[in-house]
Order: sequence, then C-alpha cells, then structure tokens
Amino acid sequence: MEHTLKAVDAELAGLGHDLAAMGDLAVAQVRSAIDVFVSHDRINAQKVIRGDDALDLQDSEIERRAVKFIALRQPFADDLRRAVAAMKIAMQLERCGDLGKNIAKRVARMDAGAPADQAEMIGGLGRMAAARLAAVVDAYRRDDAQGAYTVWASDTEIDERHEAVLRDIISRMTATSEAVADGAHLLFIAKNLERIGDHATNIAELVHYQITGQDLADRPKG
Amino acid sequence: MEHTLKAVDAELAGLGHDLAAMGDLAVAQVRSAIDVFVSHDRINAQKVIRGDDALDLQDSEIERRAVKFIALRQPFADDLRRAVAAMKIAMQLERCGDLGKNIAKRVARMDAGAPADQAEMIGGLGRMAAARLAAVVDAYRRDDAQGAYTVWASDTEIDERHEAVLRDIISRMTATSEAVADGAHLLFIAKNLERIGDHATNIAELVHYQITGQDLADRPKG
Repeated sequence: MEHTLKAVDAELAGLGHDLAAMGDLAVAQVRSAIDVFVSHDRINAQKVIRGDDALDLQDSEIERRAVKFIALRQPFADDLRRAVAAMKIAMQLERCGDLGKNIAKRVARMDAGAPADQAEMIGGLGRMAAARLAAVVDAYRRDDAQGAYTVWASDTEIDERHEAVLRDIISRMTATSEAVADGAHLLFIAKNLERIGDHATNIAELVHYQITGQDLADRPKG
Repeated sequence: MEHTLKAVDAELAGLGHDLAAMGDLAVAQVRSAIDVFVSHDRINAQKVIRGDDALDLQDSEIERRAVKFIALRQPFADDLRRAVAAMKIAMQLERCGDLGKNIAKRVARMDAGAPADQAEMIGGLGRMAAARLAAVVDAYRRDDAQGAYTVWASDTEIDERHEAVLRDIISRMTATSEAVADGAHLLFIAKNLERIGDHATNIAELVHYQITGQDLADRPKG
C-alpha cells in the first residue's frame, strides 16, 4: 500500500511537472506570436506556425497519461481532481497555442504591418494576455490557489483594453477604406488575444478548484 | 462478472444516449441563433442566450459521469475510448453552444440587421454548419463510422463558403464606411459559424476514432 501510494504521488508529480513545462512553451509561443505581429516579421511567423505542433503532441500525451492514471489508480477526491484538471488545463494551453498560430498565420497573410502606434496598442493587449497566462502557469507550478485567484479576479482589465483596441481598429477602418482588408485581420488578432486572456481565466478556475475543491465561477470578483 | 459487464454496458449506453440528446440541443441552439440573426430578432436572441446554460450543465454532467466510469470500471480498449470520446464530444458541443450564444449576443448589439441578401448569404453558411453538426450527431447516435467519415471529408465546402462570405462583408465595408461597425459584427458571426463547422469536423474524428480506433486526422480527404 505504501508502495502504491508513493507511485501514485510520483505519477501525479510527473504529470504536474510536464504540464507546467507545457505551460511555459504555450507562453513562449504566444509571446513569439505577439513579437512577429508587432514587428510584422513574416519569416519568423512561419517558425511560430511550425512550433505549434509540439503543443498538440504534449496535449495528447498529458491526456493519455491522465486517463491511464484514472483508470489504473482509481483515485478519489484530491488526486482525481488533479488528474482531471491536468487534462483540462492541457487542452486550454493547446487552444492558446492554436490562437498564437492563428495570429502568426494572419501576419503572414497581411499586406503590410499595422501602423506603428496601432501595432503597439494591440501588442500591449497581447503582452497583458501573455502575462496573465504566465502568471497562471506559475500558480499551477507553485500549487498557489491565491495566485490563481489573483489572475482570475483581474480579467476585466483585459476586457477593457480589448474594447479600446476594437474601437480604434473600427474607427480607422471607417476613416480609410484602404484600412478595411488588413483591419479585418487586426479585429481577429485582437479577438484571439482576448481569448488567450479568457483561457488564462479558465485555467485559474481549474487551478483553484484542484487545490481547494471550490469553484471560483460562483464567486464575486475584485 | 456477467453482472458487472451488463452494468458497464448499461452505463455506457446511458452516457451515449444523453450525449446524443445534448447534441440535439446544441443543433437546436445553433439553428435558433441563425434564425434570430437572419430575422434580426432581438427578443428571441435573449432566449438563445439564456438557453445556453442547459448545455453547460449537460457538459459538466457528461464529464462527471465519464470520469466516474473510468475510475470505477477501469475500462480497456473500446470502452475506455468511448468514455473519453464522450467527454471530448460534450466539450465540443458545449463550445458550439457558446458560439451560438455569441452570435445571439451580437444580434442584440447590432444597430440594424444586415441587408437582406447579405443576411441570407451568411444564414446559408450557418445552415451548412448546422447541417454538418446535425449529421455528425446522427452518426454518433447510430454508431456510424462511415457517416462520421462523410461529414469529416466534406469540410472544404464550408471553408469555401466562409471565404466567399468574408470577401462579401469586406467589400461592403470598403464601399460604405457606415457598414464598418456592423460589418465587424458580421465578420465575427461568420467566423463563429465556420468554427461550428470545425467542431463538427472534430466530433467526426472523435466518433470515427471511438468506433474504429483509427485516426481520421492522418487520412487524405475526398
């Protein structure tokens, strides 16, 4: 029994370790996507696009191990919550990778980069989203429910910034018809960045739940 | 042993039955979202928005039961594939519900409906996506790998239609600056419909995999 318990702990710790590493990779991919967007770097955009395959593989691998763990170890309570959360967090990280890849694909398809001040504004939204994602990956690694709560409670900041970015994109599209085609790409890029922020919020809920067993979703914010 | 086997089969059948019913509800929500969009019906848009809660609950419930099944029954091969697929399909359906809700929210926020011919064009894209989703829910219910394959292999149709819709929206936004603000909503509505089509493709892969154990993703299409 002692032996089995140790094996269970070691498997969960290994899963957690690899999931945190996957989180680091997702953050790096998102940051690279923002960089290639701001600098309109089409060559490195291809690198970001190719880099996403690694996240897809890691997601499948985490899922496979979590399912095997549940089936073979029949965990209860805490351990079961952790295994299910690992699977769901991996999926959220994989989605962040997809959104980063999607941004890089749009960079590759845009005629020109956005005007410098607009690129900087959208880049700022992106860095905000990436910082949230990095903070929640850290909270996961340190098993820090309070850290997860802090990320979760601060999601209105990014929504407000996203609204301001949208208004700016639309007003430039309205003023100059030449700005419409690339503007459509910018609308989707800004939306993808907002969604990365949403995924950070979802991960914060999962991290908080796996540690405390309590749902953040029912709690008032701020 | 005989007794346990029967219980396992009954649990899986019950899970499959409820998941197919969830699929029907997701299809109905998506169809209602398209209807309120085409008729610019802001009152029924609120009904679609509220209707999404039921899908969220059903998703949680399917996940809870699938995890419990895996932990208590320790299934192998086919049965394990089915339980994991149920969890993943429920999540895809829940996402379709979110996309429908998101369309209804945009209808509620748009100043006016799209011009009739444009609304009809976007509605056509939506009906194509909803038909794919309905077909793959049917394939799941009938345990029909060939039906899933047919849905999977036909996903370029919707991509082509989506591209045509995008070009139309952007050309109207370019021609008339008054069309820009609502046009931005239309771009996102069209994108949401395309993504519902993508989820149908993902579900087709999951249905095919749970029946055959073979990955469609590695196969050439058409």
